[in-house]
Amino acid sequence: MTIKEERYEIRFSGSGGQGIVLAAILLAEAAGIGDGNHVCQTQSYGPEARGGACQADVVLSKKPIDYPRAMKLDLLLAMNQASCDNYFPDLRPEGLLLVDAGLVDQVPTSRAVAIPFSQIAEKQLGQKLVANMVALGAVAQLTGIVSPKALESALMARAPKGTEEMNRRAFQAGIKAAQKVDLASLPPTVTPQEEEV
Amino acid sequence: MTIKEERYEIRFSGSGGQGIVLAAILLAEAAGIGDGNHVCQTQSYGPEARGGACQADVVLSKKPIDYPRAMKLDLLLAMNQASCDNYFPDLRPEGLLLVDAGLVDQVPTSRAVAIPFSQIAEKQLGQKLVANMVALGAVAQLTGIVSPKALESALMARAPKGTEEMNRRAFQAGIKAAQKVDLASLPPTVTPQEEEV
Repeated sequence: MTIKEERYEIRFSGSGGQGIVLAAILLAEAAGIGDGNHVCQTQSYGPEARGGACQADVVLSKKPIDYPRAMKLDLLLAMNQASCDNYFPDLRPEGLLLVDAGLVDQVPTSRAVAIPFSQIAEKQLGQKLVANMVALGAVAQLTGIVSPKALESALMARAPKGTEEMNRRAFQAGIKAAQKVDLASLPPTVTPQEEEV
Repeated sequence: MTIKEERYEIRFSGSGGQGIVLAAILLAEAAGIGDGNHVCQTQSYGPEARGGACQADVVLSKKPIDYPRAMKLDLLLAMNQASCDNYFPDLRPEGLLLVDAGLVDQVPTSRAVAIPFSQIAEKQLGQKLVANMVALGAVAQLTGIVSPKALESALMARAPKGTEEMNRRAFQAGIKAAQKVDLASLPPTVTPQEEEV
């Protein structure tokens, strides 16, 4: 799959222990295999991680990537309120906010998709820990920048032995949940329109 | 632990499947926790990964990191010949080359440390796959930029269930092997000195 834009930026964010970094690595690996895109994946630790929020960026480009960090996000996945608040300003106007509906109460824009990743993981898979894979499925479906098949292969290769099937099902559940979303019904930009009087 | 230099750059390199990315993430996590350093961790996929070589960078800095990619390496770990050849030119003059003695035959500088990571993993741990953790122990010991204790904690948190003890022993074996190295006996720069006539 080839991206349409010159540069496409995704940020995965949440708390430590939610598998944010792994989700970003899987997307980067899948997108970097056999599709002609340049892909860079970055994370920061230490004082740079604002407010305890965990962040992992994936940048895709048709051309070699000069600056590997995300600057103007096309998609922000926020798995908790703190990371939603921290990184929302980094979305570009036509970017899309994707949140865990159960963990983010206050969504700062109407150009947002809220899916209960953790709840789906817990109820359908019996394991809250795979919420990251549910979210990854949704990211794949909503962005269309990587083939679900390539992503599933990357997932199978990296999943700890014995957890492959659960992770695969979580990923599929995320795709399914995102298929119900009608992106066309959302406002075109993340910044609120001026209200008519 | 605080680094002495303004910026310290490490590249982990080798083949896909050697656990290069995981080793880099563990180092970055450990170095980014509670030591006041800024840490950035990056990998590239797609056409950017030269010659099938797999690369993962860790940059540490006292100041916020403006450019997260490694440019002038302080340490290059090469787990195969291709990555040694590809990335050796990226070492800064006083940088150090660290190679898997069993997988890299042609070492392009005398300022190099060769340790048989894969052989140690296979003979001492019975599992070649943990060569990355042997190498990580050696990196920690040789650079001194991260406390082995913090690194072991990061490792325990990320190791797949049931493999913790084997990974911990592999890491310790790497520290031990590197303790035998006398860095002071190496030439001061990676570029050959002009021969005296």
